[in-house]
Amino acid sequence: MRKKLESLREREAIRLLIRIYGRHDFPLGYEDDVAAVPISPRLWIIVKGDMLVRSTDIPPGMTLSEAGRKSIVSTVSDFAAKGVRPKALIVSIGLPRSISTRQLSEIGRGLAEGATEYGCPIVGGDTNESKDIVIDVAGFGYTKPGELVSRRGAQSGNIVAVTGEFGNSAAGLRMLLRKERHGRGAASPVLENAIRRPRARLEEGIRLARTRAVTSSIDSSDGLAWSLNEVARLGRVRVELYNVPVSMETVDYARKHNLSPYDLALYGGEEYELVVTVRKAGWPSALRAVPSLIPVGKVTKGSGVFARIEGRRIRVKPRGYEHFGEIARA
Amino acid sequence: MRKKLESLREREAIRLLIRIYGRHDFPLGYEDDVAAVPISPRLWIIVKGDMLVRSTDIPPGMTLSEAGRKSIVSTVSDFAAKGVRPKALIVSIGLPRSISTRQLSEIGRGLAEGATEYGCPIVGGDTNESKDIVIDVAGFGYTKPGELVSRRGAQSGNIVAVTGEFGNSAAGLRMLLRKERHGRGAASPVLENAIRRPRARLEEGIRLARTRAVTSSIDSSDGLAWSLNEVARLGRVRVELYNVPVSMETVDYARKHNLSPYDLALYGGEEYELVVTVRKAGWPSALRAVPSLIPVGKVTKGSGVFARIEGRRIRVKPRGYEHFGEIARA
Repeated sequence: MRKKLESLREREAIRLLIRIYGRHDFPLGYEDDVAAVPISPRLWIIVKGDMLVRSTDIPPGMTLSEAGRKSIVSTVSDFAAKGVRPKALIVSIGLPRSISTRQLSEIGRGLAEGATEYGCPIVGGDTNESKDIVIDVAGFGYTKPGELVSRRGAQSGNIVAVTGEFGNSAAGLRMLLRKERHGRGAASPVLENAIRRPRARLEEGIRLARTRAVTSSIDSSDGLAWSLNEVARLGRVRVELYNVPVSMETVDYARKHNLSPYDLALYGGEEYELVVTVRKAGWPSALRAVPSLIPVGKVTKGSGVFARIEGRRIRVKPRGYEHFGEIARA
Repeated sequence: MRKKLESLREREAIRLLIRIYGRHDFPLGYEDDVAAVPISPRLWIIVKGDMLVRSTDIPPGMTLSEAGRKSIVSTVSDFAAKGVRPKALIVSIGLPRSISTRQLSEIGRGLAEGATEYGCPIVGGDTNESKDIVIDVAGFGYTKPGELVSRRGAQSGNIVAVTGEFGNSAAGLRMLLRKERHGRGAASPVLENAIRRPRARLEEGIRLARTRAVTSSIDSSDGLAWSLNEVARLGRVRVELYNVPVSMETVDYARKHNLSPYDLALYGGEEYELVVTVRKAGWPSALRAVPSLIPVGKVTKGSGVFARIEGRRIRVKPRGYEHFGEIARA
């Protein structure tokens, strides 16, 4: 899934474009989940775009309605990580000439479902003929400057926490790509659902931001390992995981298929949990805000991300999403 | 150009999607150039998205850099029509696997050029693999509620005016599609430039809105005929043109190729002039704001759009862009 450009991979492409666009002096930009544009000392407009392409982003077994919904989840998740409620969406759609009314309706229904779920109406957009189904969702919201949680605030001594367990999306995607049928009573429907019908942690993100106990926040759509490394890099700190938050379903699936559950949890991607760092003194209030918050490690001086896995301390590299193909084919 | 979905044309697709999304209660939406999202009684966020697809929107002879720039012009033009300055852009790009660094740089340079030209930085976006080159530009800005000019305010007695002459884009596109070489001293470079390097009338739109003399405004990217019909339909009025504003270059080109210059001017599209209706008493101030404003007709009671062409009064149908193929192949 998301087979990347071979000659010029996604992050390289983005780096090249950013260099050409030139720096802007807005407080948040390319290196965060969203961009922020100040319009007054008390008000920032928050924006984010996310593009989904059928041939690379929609695995077999996923319906067009699910794809439509997911394209919204993906944008909303970036807002969730910042603690900002998206107010409205613009959805532009590229459609092959061969598309039927039924198929377009299916995409529309999925989009409408996602928009309703997160309370942000679709207020405009464009349609266009294209060779591939392309769904580009741009979201808008606003916030007061002090209320937004960026990616770059982690401090030594903070607690690292996540809003849920990992691995299900990676396992679910592998199932879809290998066209595995799930047996009765198995955990597999959970896995398949994780990839087909993910949820953005919008309410959790907003509640966490309100506590003022969170020093940094990022979503995990590029993979847990990638997100943790971004937190470490941008905060100029080290992250030490004492607990890789693997779901039981992922452990079961990994055992059955002779895979590493840690790889599935760390390097999967397309998971929409939030990864946050929390001031020690603020931990009780963070936990009151989101009781399901899972502590997984701590922030220390240094750099990089390290994890204790089966007794060994390993370095967690900033591999993510882009390399996902390797795991899927493993 | 922009060969539309055959089984389900663009406007039908949009209508279907709007029905599925459901109504929202924002002051401006699908039926205007932009959408407006009120965030306080004194502030509206203004948003607009426009998608460009290589195989349908980029004619032969147009460079990738020009395509990048044009995708920004197209979004900025919608803001221009509302008298609102776009503050920032999000640009998401779909790229075929085969794209080279040079080609991507070219797209990036065109985007950067457009962003600089209209003073609205690119603050974020996404890249993705896709079969086609897709550039989706979402723009946003803000305004006070009373300062925005919608499409639906035309009143009987108003003057209909445009910010420039029409036809050059249609003629230029025909040239590109037919791969005509322009001879020395001919008007053709002007025509080719109109389609390859269009300009959005941002300053003109902002100045016109400030006069408070403008009762409605729309851009002409879907064609002059289409825009005039929208003004008539949404204002529940009739538009009577006493002057179809055809450029001299278009007249020359039409004569040489045995085409109707009026067809090129009315039904072309991809022209980014503004079409406005102005209160009679406000005309002097509108003209002071934009001295190049061309009066072309008047608003009366009734419905539809009529024009006086070579002594005959004809009905100008809401054909536009979608049917452009017919003209291009004529």
